Amino acid sequence: MAEETHVTATTTSADVARLAGVSRATVSFVLNDTQGHRVSAATRARVLDAARQLGYVPHAAARSLRAGRSNLVLMPASVSAIGRLVSDWVDDLHGELDRHGYTAVLHAGRFADPVDAARAWAELRPAAVVALDGDRFTSQAADLLRRAGVRALMAFAARPVEGVYTIGFDHAAIGVTAAEHLIARGRTRIGVVMPQERGLDTLAQPRLAGAESVAARHMATVTPVELAYTRESATALARRWRDLDLDAVFAYNDEYAALLLHAFRSEGISVPDEVALVGSDDLVLAAFQQPALTTVRLDLPSPARIADSLHELIGTGKAPALTPVEAVLVPRESS
Amino acid sequence: MAEETHVTATTTSADVARLAGVSRATVSFVLNDTQGHRVSAATRARVLDAARQLGYVPHAAARSLRAGRSNLVLMPASVSAIGRLVSDWVDDLHGELDRHGYTAVLHAGRFADPVDAARAWAELRPAAVVALDGDRFTSQAADLLRRAGVRALMAFAARPVEGVYTIGFDHAAIGVTAAEHLIARGRTRIGVVMPQERGLDTLAQPRLAGAESVAARHMATVTPVELAYTRESATALARRWRDLDLDAVFAYNDEYAALLLHAFRSEGISVPDEVALVGSDDLVLAAFQQPALTTVRLDLPSPARIADSLHELIGTGKAPALTPVEAVLVPRESS
Repeated sequence: MAEETHVTATTTSADVARLAGVSRATVSFVLNDTQGHRVSAATRARVLDAARQLGYVPHAAARSLRAGRSNLVLMPASVSAIGRLVSDWVDDLHGELDRHGYTAVLHAGRFADPVDAARAWAELRPAAVVALDGDRFTSQAADLLRRAGVRALMAFAARPVEGVYTIGFDHAAIGVTAAEHLIARGRTRIGVVMPQERGLDTLAQPRLAGAESVAARHMATVTPVELAYTRESATALARRWRDLDLDAVFAYNDEYAALLLHAFRSEGISVPDEVALVGSDDLVLAAFQQPALTTVRLDLPSPARIADSLHELIGTGKAPALTPVEAVLVPRESS
Repeated sequence: MAEETHVTATTTSADVARLAGVSRATVSFVLNDTQGHRVSAATRARVLDAARQLGYVPHAAARSLRAGRSNLVLMPASVSAIGRLVSDWVDDLHGELDRHGYTAVLHAGRFADPVDAARAWAELRPAAVVALDGDRFTSQAADLLRRAGVRALMAFAARPVEGVYTIGFDHAAIGVTAAEHLIARGRTRIGVVMPQERGLDTLAQPRLAGAESVAARHMATVTPVELAYTRESATALARRWRDLDLDAVFAYNDEYAALLLHAFRSEGISVPDEVALVGSDDLVLAAFQQPALTTVRLDLPSPARIADSLHELIGTGKAPALTPVEAVLVPRESS
């Protein structure tokens, strides 16, 4: 059984010009808001009317090339890596960008090389690129984007990148905060969950490194523990838990922590008596677990401030620096 | 304190032409893979080398206009509305599209009018548009996209839309499945959670309508119950629960169900004795709740099959019909 799709001829600016009785150049001036060309109000109305009748949509990228502006804000993103915490924040950011007249697009392309990634993003000619996972940004990638006319580059990253407006966000600090808390509670053999899901490695590695740096200053050990976000993987880990001889675990984030908590309970492993458990993100579900989950809250700048800064960057090339993202311990019953 | 950003001159194809010692037309032929123009291997190499040296990126949309193709697949999406279930599926779909040489972009623009939405999407000149929330697609919007050169339109929707390859996905069926189960278990006063989060209304309304259609055929009532995904909202609802005089609740999805389950427990409301609880999506967390959550599993077509069909649609304008999404009850302890 084959399902036919509807075929319609593509409408071009030539069709609009013909219907309006004007030149293609005039159509272009009107629809692209090109500066420095005078078109009478009557002609303008005729062109807009013809475009509406024919359902003609000007080409965003071509328009941005001619008018020297684009309203796209590109965010490189893997949807599932975003997680619950950041997904609400990203959604709010999109709303705030909308208020300034920008449209956010999430680019799901996967690239091993940062310059290949930048090249793919540049092809869309966005006004700005905002990277949540900015530690993969390089000055070479930034340069390529600039040359392609991208007006603002913003990244959340542990270290500043040349040519990029950087908001400090060191994932190692999350591991540091979790490990310092566990050690203060008298734990010395700390497991750190390494999620097996695609795209999370670049976020998980610095968290592990942060925990290791703390352990190195104390009489404590850190052991990476692999966990996939499935019931099977959590159950398997809980079943071999006692062989690992660990008295604490930092579970990457609250979702993995909740999963592990349930698996521990099924296997009769007591939290926090036998193992202290810490998550991250302070999700709604963390407070509701039994026992309530200790977590690390991340104080991100408000979406409204980010949108304001980005708008300023696009317009003027600079913006006041924003406070780095802070990792704050939220102690509860699980540790 | 102001943070300066790096300023770099934009590289144009004229710069590439100058460095390679060829015309701009030749640069365009080489970089845009234009058919029917012969350029010697040596010239081609010189142009590519100059483009590399200058970090020049051809313009995707301009290239797609000239070469008559684009590799973008646009998905209208609100990140937070996607939810855990669909986010993994969307991520896998992006991987499969990548395999076919396409890049997925999620467009976060918000539009009250479907034609306004279509116009904004069309500006990016994608090869295809895939709408998960396809019930808002109209034939007028489809026509506009076709005229803008979009080659394939795919939508998950309850009813077929003219000119759109539609995969049947009736959210009412989720409400029907949940309500039929609750009534079979002897419950007659069913609450249906209406999430207060932005973007979920178009998914929640048909679930409510589905439950209502079942109740109308039995001696049962359906009461919409507002709930925001916050601890405060869940606690407030649990506290006034007994005044509502309901013996069952279909909680929109597993995340809202888990939230409500925790709030019920805190208030001493017993599940399933006092209230039977059903979620949806069969998330990993559903099986792990105490009591384990009854849920409705959604059998979505595999991302690989969707990508294959879309590739076929883009290439030939047609593809075999896919099986509609099915809603299947997964009975557990909470109902």
